Amino acid sequence: VKLWGGRFEESVTDAVEKFTESISYDKALYKHDIMGSKAHASMLAKQGLISDSDKNSILRGLDEIERQIEAGKFMWRTDREDVHMNIEAALTDIIGEPAKKLHTARSRNDQVLTDFRLWCRDAIDTIVRSIQRLQVALVKLALKNEGLIVPGYTHLQRAQPVLLQHLLLAYVEQLERDAGRLQDCRVRMNFCPLGACALAGTGLPIDRFMTAEALEFTAPMRNSIDAVSDRDFVLEFLSANSIIAIHLSRLGEEWVLWASEEFGFITPSDSVSTGSSIMPQKKNPDPMELVRGKSARVIGDLVTLLTLCKGLPLAYNRDLQEDKEPTFDSVKTIVGMLEVSAEFAQNITFNVERIKKALPAGYLDATTLADYLVNKANMQQIPFRTSHDIVGKAVALCVSKECQLQDLSLDEMRSLNPVFDKDVYEYLGVENAIRKFSSFGSTGSACVTEQLHSWVAKLGINRSSC
Amino acid sequence: VKLWGGRFEESVTDAVEKFTESISYDKALYKHDIMGSKAHASMLAKQGLISDSDKNSILRGLDEIERQIEAGKFMWRTDREDVHMNIEAALTDIIGEPAKKLHTARSRNDQVLTDFRLWCRDAIDTIVRSIQRLQVALVKLALKNEGLIVPGYTHLQRAQPVLLQHLLLAYVEQLERDAGRLQDCRVRMNFCPLGACALAGTGLPIDRFMTAEALEFTAPMRNSIDAVSDRDFVLEFLSANSIIAIHLSRLGEEWVLWASEEFGFITPSDSVSTGSSIMPQKKNPDPMELVRGKSARVIGDLVTLLTLCKGLPLAYNRDLQEDKEPTFDSVKTIVGMLEVSAEFAQNITFNVERIKKALPAGYLDATTLADYLVNKANMQQIPFRTSHDIVGKAVALCVSKECQLQDLSLDEMRSLNPVFDKDVYEYLGVENAIRKFSSFGSTGSACVTEQLHSWVAKLGINRSSC
Amino acid sequence: VKLWGGRFEESVTDAVEKFTESISYDKALYKHDIMGSKAHASMLAKQGLISDSDKNSILRGLDEIERQIEAGKFMWRTDREDVHMNIEAALTDIIGEPAKKLHTARSRNDQVLTDFRLWCRDAIDTIVRSIQRLQVALVKLALKNEGLIVPGYTHLQRAQPVLLQHLLLAYVEQLERDAGRLQDCRVRMNFCPLGACALAGTGLPIDRFMTAEALEFTAPMRNSIDAVSDRDFVLEFLSANSIIAIHLSRLGEEWVLWASEEFGFITPSDSVSTGSSIMPQKKNPDPMELVRGKSARVIGDLVTLLTLCKGLPLAYNRDLQEDKEPTFDSVKTIVGMLEVSAEFAQNITFNVERIKKALPAGYLDATTLADYLVNKANMQQIPFRTSHDIVGKAVALCVSKECQLQDLSLDEMRSLNPVFDKDVYEYLGVENAIRKFSSFGSTGSACVTEQLHSWVAKLGINRSSC
Amino acid sequence: VKLWGGRFEESVTDAVEKFTESISYDKALYKHDIMGSKAHASMLAKQGLISDSDKNSILRGLDEIERQIEAGKFMWRTDREDVHMNIEAALTDIIGEPAKKLHTARSRNDQVLTDFRLWCRDAIDTIVRSIQRLQVALVKLALKNEGLIVPGYTHLQRAQPVLLQHLLLAYVEQLERDAGRLQDCRVRMNFCPLGACALAGTGLPIDRFMTAEALEFTAPMRNSIDAVSDRDFVLEFLSANSIIAIHLSRLGEEWVLWASEEFGFITPSDSVSTGSSIMPQKKNPDPMELVRGKSARVIGDLVTLLTLCKGLPLAYNRDLQEDKEPTFDSVKTIVGMLEVSAEFAQNITFNVERIKKALPAGYLDATTLADYLVNKANMQQIPFRTSHDIVGKAVALCVSKECQLQDLSLDEMRSLNPVFDKDVYEYLGVENAIRKFSSFGSTGSACVTEQLHSWVAKLGINRSSC
Repeated sequence: VKLWGGRFEESVTDAVEKFTESISYDKALYKHDIMGSKAHASMLAKQGLISDSDKNSILRGLDEIERQIEAGKFMWRTDREDVHMNIEAALTDIIGEPAKKLHTARSRNDQVLTDFRLWCRDAIDTIVRSIQRLQVALVKLALKNEGLIVPGYTHLQRAQPVLLQHLLLAYVEQLERDAGRLQDCRVRMNFCPLGACALAGTGLPIDRFMTAEALEFTAPMRNSIDAVSDRDFVLEFLSANSIIAIHLSRLGEEWVLWASEEFGFITPSDSVSTGSSIMPQKKNPDPMELVRGKSARVIGDLVTLLTLCKGLPLAYNRDLQEDKEPTFDSVKTIVGMLEVSAEFAQNITFNVERIKKALPAGYLDATTLADYLVNKANMQQIPFRTSHDIVGKAVALCVSKECQLQDLSLDEMRSLNPVFDKDVYEYLGVENAIRKFSSFGSTGSACVTEQLHSWVAKLGINRSSC
Repeated sequence: VKLWGGRFEESVTDAVEKFTESISYDKALYKHDIMGSKAHASMLAKQGLISDSDKNSILRGLDEIERQIEAGKFMWRTDREDVHMNIEAALTDIIGEPAKKLHTARSRNDQVLTDFRLWCRDAIDTIVRSIQRLQVALVKLALKNEGLIVPGYTHLQRAQPVLLQHLLLAYVEQLERDAGRLQDCRVRMNFCPLGACALAGTGLPIDRFMTAEALEFTAPMRNSIDAVSDRDFVLEFLSANSIIAIHLSRLGEEWVLWASEEFGFITPSDSVSTGSSIMPQKKNPDPMELVRGKSARVIGDLVTLLTLCKGLPLAYNRDLQEDKEPTFDSVKTIVGMLEVSAEFAQNITFNVERIKKALPAGYLDATTLADYLVNKANMQQIPFRTSHDIVGKAVALCVSKECQLQDLSLDEMRSLNPVFDKDVYEYLGVENAIRKFSSFGSTGSACVTEQLHSWVAKLGINRSSC
Repeated sequence: VKLWGGRFEESVTDAVEKFTESISYDKALYKHDIMGSKAHASMLAKQGLISDSDKNSILRGLDEIERQIEAGKFMWRTDREDVHMNIEAALTDIIGEPAKKLHTARSRNDQVLTDFRLWCRDAIDTIVRSIQRLQVALVKLALKNEGLIVPGYTHLQRAQPVLLQHLLLAYVEQLERDAGRLQDCRVRMNFCPLGACALAGTGLPIDRFMTAEALEFTAPMRNSIDAVSDRDFVLEFLSANSIIAIHLSRLGEEWVLWASEEFGFITPSDSVSTGSSIMPQKKNPDPMELVRGKSARVIGDLVTLLTLCKGLPLAYNRDLQEDKEPTFDSVKTIVGMLEVSAEFAQNITFNVERIKKALPAGYLDATTLADYLVNKANMQQIPFRTSHDIVGKAVALCVSKECQLQDLSLDEMRSLNPVFDKDVYEYLGVENAIRKFSSFGSTGSACVTEQLHSWVAKLGINRSSC
Repeated sequence: VKLWGGRFEESVTDAVEKFTESISYDKALYKHDIMGSKAHASMLAKQGLISDSDKNSILRGLDEIERQIEAGKFMWRTDREDVHMNIEAALTDIIGEPAKKLHTARSRNDQVLTDFRLWCRDAIDTIVRSIQRLQVALVKLALKNEGLIVPGYTHLQRAQPVLLQHLLLAYVEQLERDAGRLQDCRVRMNFCPLGACALAGTGLPIDRFMTAEALEFTAPMRNSIDAVSDRDFVLEFLSANSIIAIHLSRLGEEWVLWASEEFGFITPSDSVSTGSSIMPQKKNPDPMELVRGKSARVIGDLVTLLTLCKGLPLAYNRDLQEDKEPTFDSVKTIVGMLEVSAEFAQNITFNVERIKKALPAGYLDATTLADYLVNKANMQQIPFRTSHDIVGKAVALCVSKECQLQDLSLDEMRSLNPVFDKDVYEYLGVENAIRKFSSFGSTGSACVTEQLHSWVAKLGINRSSC
């Protein structure tokens, strides 16, 4: 029998019960539901709304239920609809009458939001820790591969040489902003809806500041209607997750490319690869393909929640029950993606020789050469736009001769522009080129090393352990 | 140990195994996987690729596995990755060596798509049946409420009177197109990928036409790369589901409105309503709120799949493993939405008296009056645009007098335009207005009755059972 | 001729030019492009990379171009691809050679991101101002309607009475968080990519701190690859907009409901309503319907951008050019939605008499009655759960008698529970009920008034102007 | 002055007018609006609702308006809201009174849907033609590259050798289904809403079959409420476009990969490439990157429309005005993507020598070798699963020896399994491997050639023109 059944003469049909239940997934909130109920019961007692002895029974009963759940012995019942009613009804089974006083000055509307905000707060902390683990793995990978030059790409065409370390730190930067977004979201979400009741608050003498403090919220929410009706905190959370997912999808794409025969930059160990049921030679970087693929469901989860909330009038509508599954899925997926990416990072080897051999292709030093001309002729005759044009022609010459820029003779260069001098060869070739970078944030060795050190310090990495 | 492990020296880490497994959800394909394997084994035997005795062992073994699964006794193992490997490995446990021949001329790439297309085909048939059940429920509801006039709305403002039957049949029309979309999708999807193997086909003498026929596909797919890499059949399927979801979300919105105190058109029975944990008087139309809400996840599932497939090169990529969960979720959700909507339709009562009492508000007869003027003055002095303006002024007069159009005196009307005559009162009032509709597809009684009869016939409804 | 044409022998086809151009929309960036170029030129001069005289020519030329653009006299050319090349080429037309030096140590990759971040920063400031205008309009509407009680809804069923002021302030709270999200986004985005060049930085002696400061960025970005490849700042921006859109879609839905004949809470003035081409009596709340509808495109814009970025490898890819149109559309739409909502708020009248007349329906005082019982019998015999059940039965009795709770005799109540006493009538009826609310954040008059005052102060509203 | 202004005393504010106008984009419907109005006027005359002379004036006036629009001389006015009112008001300016009769028995609700369905029908025909052009371009590209073997990939790892022709035809197959989806959509959408009027039909004696036939619709729609409220036809259309977009995004990804230095399969001509503003050597495959990128907006457009329609009650709501821009954008984008892809296909050269040189890497013949063992030992000792394991070990041996499978001696092979015989070398090497494929739909030459011929015939390609 439903706990709200006073005015009802007939119980809901099986199909409706099955369609509307949420216990199959919202039981994930049990820990936070119990935590919230304890804080609520303590407050009710302090305010004289229940007796101390009732409070003690309730706390004892809730402890017992938590133990049962964690031991896998709790019977979740679909006819009790959701986690709240399951726990309250079980409490009644265990302690009897006092349990019926727990719902004083509380509705499921404020209760579920208290639980859910607590759950999301914990989930954010978990994700932030996983982000840091991935950052550490990337920084360690950078430390292991000092000095390794790889082609930098734009349009997937070879562009300029970059230090692998520089490239890996780009992801570390992105992840840092990802963590920042989650922290901002956490601050904004950390207000307590408990006591908003159904939507309007209550006339019973409750103390919302006490429960808010007990549950480590910053303060109670200021408007009871807002408290029970809005889901912006979880929209913001899933948006932040979606941006993380996008970052990881790009890392996934990049590493899948790097593991291909054609790029050949990395070899993943067997422990992070899988094979084929038909092709005996296959060794596939599946974890990173799935990281890329699973980004889609994190985005899908966000779209579900946005679409869900669109156009609902105030205050609570049952549609909003559907906020939980996408959130749970988003969190689980993001944590898995972060963890597996870190694991993958720890299990790849860079094919240094092969990378070196392939570096000359693609005229990665062309821009350095254009800068050389500008610098050489500074404030004199060659604006960058002209220099760009001259080097463009030099490249065309190389293409037709099937050679590198450094293979052009000084005469050939001078035929394009007389400013070329023999010091030009100090600018050509990938290693020379990389040596020239000097601007803040650039791929120049000194710049990159400085950034790397600052991340090592910030993330508390013990370099001897790498 | 993985079945593809020949060249591998190390097994995958636990985190990778857990992240990449699919058995937790793709076991839903077991029936179709077994069906496909039987067809494949029979073909291999007929082509002389395995012996008849091996084939018989395989068929027997697969039957045994199916029995175990359906009895809930089959042990699904995560270390065996997916449904295919679980079943093949179990087959080896049961029948030994012959099981190892089953994967001849087959890859998981073509196998999973065969399973998945079979599964989707069945799912489409299930959904089409659920659509028909809802159509029947709506038509029966229409039959029960003959002659009931309700306000028709545009912009949620009262517009013109309509027969409730007419309104309900609008949904029946939409559902009919929904079924049509699914049927078109089924026809396009019903081609067999089996034998495409990893991506390139095989040199072994298989007969793809035989397996295609055995599995009731129209024909084998013509291009093996296309067969293993494309997911358009499921994108189309989830698109069709999304459109159904949109239709049902609108039905949900409408019925939630109708059940409100303010509209008061319908009273849902207790068996499809739920209460509040705090507010004793509440009786909420939750099933329809959830129908509206769950539409969001069907759309989210589609977005997941679209995003998943975007930008993947040919042929198979592991990302595509993620095609299944959104599909399973979409199907389960749509079927639930259709079934619960039908159940709701069977459990509502129209509050005829209250509707009647409220009908005069909103000048629902204003357009009929404008048509009256046009007709009256036909080819003479009053174009519709002028007539619209005259009636607009009549409405403004009523607003200031707080009366209905039929309460205006003929003199008052004639002061607006001399064409008004006393037959005008035959056009005023909701019941008069509805009597005037005559165009094909309109809300005129004869038109609606004809449509209703044609649906009764088409859906095979026994009117005596209503 | 393209400015990058050095190595090219053939120009692109018309179809390609048309498909790849961005000038048709990215000219919106002109002001920020010029601002960035001026900062860049000044820095180049200070660092000795160009002469002061070149710098002065450039600044003068850019001023001239800005004047032309704002006077509508600038010729945007599709063959010049984008805003950057259009302005640089025009600069060359005007000042000749020095213009060719402007692109020294700069790529379009860092240039466009500098422009785009500046544009987004301004857009955020604009939206925050529009948010405040809507907050002010809502608070003023609340001030105008002191003491007005309306039904509060859950499940669109009447739940408990609330003060209209309380309800309006719920939106003000949501909008405040919306502004906070934008501010957080602004802080995170306000770092300068200029000097990241193509992706790797440069060897020319530039000063990125100088340009960053000149453009009022917090600092230059620390990693050049990150700077040119990531779009998280705009993903975060469009996410924040999407959440605003959701909030406004709910406001739209609510006001459309309120304007309906059935609810009848508000009458919008003619100046924010539109009519029908066929139905002379119609007066539709179109602006709020469009607010609700346009929320969809804000969400669609976010999905576009998420899908766009998914799976792209580092660093810049041409796909990313598609980041601008959804952003421009999102911003324009959100600003329009906020402005029109504020305008609507200023043009509605609450139908006080009609609301009052309708208030008794729906047993809005039932929860107050349940609290009465709890309070009355405190720590004695009636737990809330029991009290809820008793009131449920009282409601059922009223339903059968077609009366209100306050119409029940004391005897009738006592037949349900003996604790009822004659002071119960002080708790019944909507006005009594509202008087009882006292918890922080509740709809009690004192609580609401306090909140209202704090918003008046915070938003700097002059009460005499309302 | 608005044409619906009869009961209005005040005109809408500028902000509202600007926010609610649609003329800035729905003028794209002008041709179909005029077409619909002509059909409607002719019907009104035939039915005696207007005189022949009025009809003739109307037709003449509409012709004049069409001429003005096409000559760019028509003044679109925002204060006239939309395309319908602009044209009707202009008609009144030109022909006077008779124009005011045109809107007899018509509402903008049915008018706009008539226009929009006609527009979409034309758009589908345009897209189908563009699909065919791309199919032709792909088939011609296949014809030009007969016999070229490329690596086939799964997981972006080399899998098995395939004929380039086979791979290109995979896209042709996908596009064929894309066209089929559009055709099905066209059939389902081709019913006429005209005469549904506002939502309820009319009492005036119109002939909906006559207008439906004149506009080449299959029939009038059967339910007037359905006719004005549903948008499933355009949801289906945008879904079909989204699937096309996904297919093209994959083609884009593949060709971007192929154009990279690392893959090096294709060289796009200068006419479909662009350069860099800073890096002189760059030659980027931008059109295909944008094809990939623009797929995102097609998906975003669909999401916009789905979200838009979610939860709207019947019948017309102003939100639905927002259906047009996403549709227009989706169509324009898809046509551009198809056209540019075809142009790109015509402007790439396959680097035959480089491809050949790279083919030996990746053990593309491993599966052929596994099949060899199965075949060799048929019905005897080696099941496929064992064979797969043996070849896995052979590959591991090759990896350690850094050689190809064909470089293993017969003794080395026999040490793995005695069944190996010297005919094994006829199966090794990419060219041998490709020769062995024989199954229907496989990459075997005969199979591919047969498929190619059937496409040449189906698409009516003149082979001499390739």
